Amino acid sequence: MFKKVRLEVGVVFAIGLSFNALTYFVSGRLPEMPLGVPAFLGTAISILLSFKMSQSYERWWEARKIWGSIVNDSRTLVVQLQSYLSTEYREVIAEIGHRQIAWCYALGDSLRGLNPLTRDTGCLRVEDISKLSKHQNKPLALVQQQALSIKSLAEQGALDVFCRVQLDKTLVRLVDSMGRAERINTTVFPVTYRLFLHAAIYLFLITLSIAIQDVHAIFEIPLLVLIAALFFLVDKTAYNLQDPFRNRPSDIPVTAIARTIEINIRQLLGEESWPEPAKPKTFFIL
Amino acid sequence: MFKKVRLEVGVVFAIGLSFNALTYFVSGRLPEMPLGVPAFLGTAISILLSFKMSQSYERWWEARKIWGSIVNDSRTLVVQLQSYLSTEYREVIAEIGHRQIAWCYALGDSLRGLNPLTRDTGCLRVEDISKLSKHQNKPLALVQQQALSIKSLAEQGALDVFCRVQLDKTLVRLVDSMGRAERINTTVFPVTYRLFLHAAIYLFLITLSIAIQDVHAIFEIPLLVLIAALFFLVDKTAYNLQDPFRNRPSDIPVTAIARTIEINIRQLLGEESWPEPAKPKTFFIL
Amino acid sequence: MFKKVRLEVGVVFAIGLSFNALTYFVSGRLPEMPLGVPAFLGTAISILLSFKMSQSYERWWEARKIWGSIVNDSRTLVVQLQSYLSTEYREVIAEIGHRQIAWCYALGDSLRGLNPLTRDTGCLRVEDISKLSKHQNKPLALVQQQALSIKSLAEQGALDVFCRVQLDKTLVRLVDSMGRAERINTTVFPVTYRLFLHAAIYLFLITLSIAIQDVHAIFEIPLLVLIAALFFLVDKTAYNLQDPFRNRPSDIPVTAIARTIEINIRQLLGEESWPEPAKPKTFFIL
Amino acid sequence: MFKKVRLEVGVVFAIGLSFNALTYFVSGRLPEMPLGVPAFLGTAISILLSFKMSQSYERWWEARKIWGSIVNDSRTLVVQLQSYLSTEYREVIAEIGHRQIAWCYALGDSLRGLNPLTRDTGCLRVEDISKLSKHQNKPLALVQQQALSIKSLAEQGALDVFCRVQLDKTLVRLVDSMGRAERINTTVFPVTYRLFLHAAIYLFLITLSIAIQDVHAIFEIPLLVLIAALFFLVDKTAYNLQDPFRNRPSDIPVTAIARTIEINIRQLLGEESWPEPAKPKTFFIL
Amino acid sequence: MFKKVRLEVGVVFAIGLSFNALTYFVSGRLPEMPLGVPAFLGTAISILLSFKMSQSYERWWEARKIWGSIVNDSRTLVVQLQSYLSTEYREVIAEIGHRQIAWCYALGDSLRGLNPLTRDTGCLRVEDISKLSKHQNKPLALVQQQALSIKSLAEQGALDVFCRVQLDKTLVRLVDSMGRAERINTTVFPVTYRLFLHAAIYLFLITLSIAIQDVHAIFEIPLLVLIAALFFLVDKTAYNLQDPFRNRPSDIPVTAIARTIEINIRQLLGEESWPEPAKPKTFFIL
Repeated sequence: MFKKVRLEVGVVFAIGLSFNALTYFVSGRLPEMPLGVPAFLGTAISILLSFKMSQSYERWWEARKIWGSIVNDSRTLVVQLQSYLSTEYREVIAEIGHRQIAWCYALGDSLRGLNPLTRDTGCLRVEDISKLSKHQNKPLALVQQQALSIKSLAEQGALDVFCRVQLDKTLVRLVDSMGRAERINTTVFPVTYRLFLHAAIYLFLITLSIAIQDVHAIFEIPLLVLIAALFFLVDKTAYNLQDPFRNRPSDIPVTAIARTIEINIRQLLGEESWPEPAKPKTFFIL
Repeated sequence: MFKKVRLEVGVVFAIGLSFNALTYFVSGRLPEMPLGVPAFLGTAISILLSFKMSQSYERWWEARKIWGSIVNDSRTLVVQLQSYLSTEYREVIAEIGHRQIAWCYALGDSLRGLNPLTRDTGCLRVEDISKLSKHQNKPLALVQQQALSIKSLAEQGALDVFCRVQLDKTLVRLVDSMGRAERINTTVFPVTYRLFLHAAIYLFLITLSIAIQDVHAIFEIPLLVLIAALFFLVDKTAYNLQDPFRNRPSDIPVTAIARTIEINIRQLLGEESWPEPAKPKTFFIL
Repeated sequence: MFKKVRLEVGVVFAIGLSFNALTYFVSGRLPEMPLGVPAFLGTAISILLSFKMSQSYERWWEARKIWGSIVNDSRTLVVQLQSYLSTEYREVIAEIGHRQIAWCYALGDSLRGLNPLTRDTGCLRVEDISKLSKHQNKPLALVQQQALSIKSLAEQGALDVFCRVQLDKTLVRLVDSMGRAERINTTVFPVTYRLFLHAAIYLFLITLSIAIQDVHAIFEIPLLVLIAALFFLVDKTAYNLQDPFRNRPSDIPVTAIARTIEINIRQLLGEESWPEPAKPKTFFIL
Repeated sequence: MFKKVRLEVGVVFAIGLSFNALTYFVSGRLPEMPLGVPAFLGTAISILLSFKMSQSYERWWEARKIWGSIVNDSRTLVVQLQSYLSTEYREVIAEIGHRQIAWCYALGDSLRGLNPLTRDTGCLRVEDISKLSKHQNKPLALVQQQALSIKSLAEQGALDVFCRVQLDKTLVRLVDSMGRAERINTTVFPVTYRLFLHAAIYLFLITLSIAIQDVHAIFEIPLLVLIAALFFLVDKTAYNLQDPFRNRPSDIPVTAIARTIEINIRQLLGEESWPEPAKPKTFFIL
Repeated sequence: MFKKVRLEVGVVFAIGLSFNALTYFVSGRLPEMPLGVPAFLGTAISILLSFKMSQSYERWWEARKIWGSIVNDSRTLVVQLQSYLSTEYREVIAEIGHRQIAWCYALGDSLRGLNPLTRDTGCLRVEDISKLSKHQNKPLALVQQQALSIKSLAEQGALDVFCRVQLDKTLVRLVDSMGRAERINTTVFPVTYRLFLHAAIYLFLITLSIAIQDVHAIFEIPLLVLIAALFFLVDKTAYNLQDPFRNRPSDIPVTAIARTIEINIRQLLGEESWPEPAKPKTFFIL
């Protein structure tokens, strides 16, 4: 865990050491730093850090909510199709259901910057895949295919117009979820804020190390390093949470969620086999 | 109540005692720790703890809102059926109403990791139960049955297509509530944040016990233990609130809410008997 | 106002007095308490109190929003009926409008734990009242009657099916508002949090009274009592806000709001007489 | 700007002066007040003030959002009418559009406690105005007229029933916005909270003036007055923001927004003349 | 980056220097300022600054969400048209799709105070452009054209009435997004709050420079300047975030988002060429 803030902690260690060394050699020349200065700086940093943590957590939690909506709307889509169509359309329902599974995997890959076509989900027909190649935004192309499948059902007279509109609304919600996930993924969190925070933490540590120079180095250095590690780790946690689709352990587990959707859809379709659910991670390191 | 933080408080007690002992034996060797250091740490911890409490409370409150929506939509489902269907469909309405009661109990059990089939609610027909056995997600399977019941009513011509769409929307909202409760249940709150907090609390207590070593042990130890207990109890409260479906006293009372829904639905159906409401807990210990 | 925290302030007065007395008699034996300890505790308490105040206020404000929605949907219901039905159904519209007024009063009474049937609103027909007696949840039973009135209009052919669905949506929103108000009313706010707060405030006051023992009692005691009163009054305000349907002055004024709805509905119906609006309270004591 | 807190600042000036005078005359009799006491009080006040500012700002911002929705739904209403009705209904569209403009002005006046009928917008027909006189809530009466105009269009067969339902939804949203604005206007913000804050600020200033009595009066008095002014001005800002419809400079500019709506609607209707937009205030004093 | 707060930092530098100079010349005449005064002021400023940062960030994030909704609804509009209309209406779909692209660019320009007609998107027909000239609010006029195109499709019988209503809902959402973006753009954030903050920061710096006058100028001046720069930069960040449509680097990248929409729509329409996506800025300076 400390690996992640090695650099920062190292710098802090060096600062502490050099100020202690200075104390021995040029004792009396170092400024008197009242402890009130770093104390107030520490409080200010806590407040600014708390704001940052709060915003990052909200981004992460919104991303999780979006994928929760995707779970709900994927299930709803299949239940609606089964409710609206007579049993002779069993195969079309399965086709749309499978495409929905593929969409979930594709959206997850696409958010993480991977090419969705390299994953073989076994859920897309060959002609669907070939149509995807021309599109930059594969999940959007798959939603278009879903819309055209529903159009074709409506044109065959299999689907009442009101029921069709309900399916359409479910698709609208899926397009919304996709767009919201993309928004979180592409919006850069103001980076200057983090620079100010780091600057403030270093300023705090320098003033603190001067202020407590009378404390023996054996106590002072670990204290400085621990407080520094604490601040930098909270900052790092916030940094990791704010971009939840980056192939990091703190990511929203998009593939595991897509797997859950696959299991749910296959069971709703009455199929006999489905993949194992992804193992939940027992220990969650940010 | 203090039982819950026994371990932590014990450690604090030991720390306080050993630093006091040290003061007597190696007096003069212990570092001078200005009180400003633990004071600033205590403020920082309060701020981080406040953020954690706030997020945990929001998870808990969202879980409570979700079950509030389930109450509303369950009532709405029955009122809508009675409003849309002529009185000759009384029995189908009762069947769907009873299945809705069973769904509520099943969702509650399922969220708590219990097998919904072991609870005999007397609300499901034998054929419904047999169909459930193949499904991993029993509440989802029950929603599917509700959708198919409504489909069958529509196919018999008992239900206007617009009214049907309204019932469908109520089911969509129930699927949403289910998915949102599952989301809260399966999303792990970043655990590292809690580790940092604990580390910070211990660091705070160690520096505080050094800083106030001049205070007599008879006053110092209880003071340390009380402050430690306060921090650890707030942290524990936050920890318990953040997972509201774990069979703990601070849980959302899902069974009691399902009972309320059962009473409401049975009275709306004009039935003669219903269960007693669950006794509200008079004292709520987290 | 101070009546409400008399007990707590009395305890504080006693603490201050006894520590001052101690200072005179065992002067020199009392521990040295650096002011930093109560200062940090006071900051921590402010932060935790601020979180509590914030959550309580949000519950209160949500309750107010719910009753705002009830105002809107009650007005909407009448405007919709007048828009959808031809003028020959004037009396049915009046009947539904009056029942809506009765529902608002009944929901208010029911939330406050009063029996809605004891209030004579003059808005319900005798047969409606008799049907209510069997129901535990009177407002829910009244919504069911509204739904059946609308059903009967639809069966007479007076109401287009699309318009009917709009009325149905308005009823769904009213059921939602009812359920949300009940949720706030029945959900116990974690009481342990308040216990911790009180413990922390007493700990703060004890350490503060030791820390400022050198200040003369004539200044110390009022200072302690004022600070204590401030903390306990903010806590009491939060406590009162968090349960907004308890017959307290800080309650949401449900009866006054129901009165406003009655006036609005009677004027929309073109009636000649309506009650006076409830006098707004000029001074609002929590 | 300082005019607004003259009284409070005057009191603070007097306090500072009298404590300084006391220092000269009874020097040695004044209590020793450690600076920690006012410092902690100042922090506590900042936290409570920050909560108050935050809630007030949210009320103000919600009020602004409500008027934003009114802009959107007013535009939508006209665009929908033009889209649903054939061009021969041009005049009815204009009539409804003009009534919508009148509604916006009337709602703004009504929220500010002015009589909407005294403003001559030139947008209402004589018969509309005469019907208004009997109603206490003029904007609600205007919405009822809009609903009846739409009803009359539907009865003439000019409006498809589905399209009619869309118009109805737009009206429902307008009724909602009206009710939400009224809710903010009539809900008294808990006044006791503000009393506590003021008491705390005075307590803070008294303890601060004792604590820094050694500082020369020429520096002490301005310092006290500036800090007091800062706290009281933030409190005043919060106080002004919390009631956004009171004819104050910090109000939501309801008349200017209604003017914007008038311009938009008149241009959508293809009219040749429209009023000038209200000048934005270049400097915004709270 | 420091360029932006040059003025403020310069003033701070001057203050620090003059107080240091004063210390040398009139040493002993300068007041004793306990460090507690600036420390408490610094904490208060952090809290008020944190509130300001939080509100500004929310405005900025809301603006980003609005443009995310515009992305979603623009895609939805095209997918819906393709799903509802038979393939013979290919050209009308393309026309509406192109107008939608033009609308996005026009809204972005209009929010930034630029004239939308000066940008040649190649997406509008000549007759559309000519109709725009009379309108002040060009994006609103374009939405009106979209509504009339859909009306014309409906009148030709190409569009089922239910499907038409779905398209209409998508347009309503676009009007909403437009209005919400305009609301953020035209609502002035209470400027007095910022004045108080600046006053408080200067007061803090003056008291701090007096309080630490014993620290040597070589250490004192940089410390003052760094702390001042930190506060002013956080304030500047908040100031820039609060108005997200002002042609600043921290703006919502409305043109880049409109470009994305153009690419998506052109690919959905099956066109062969589309513009390059806008390069994401690799370093984001506020």
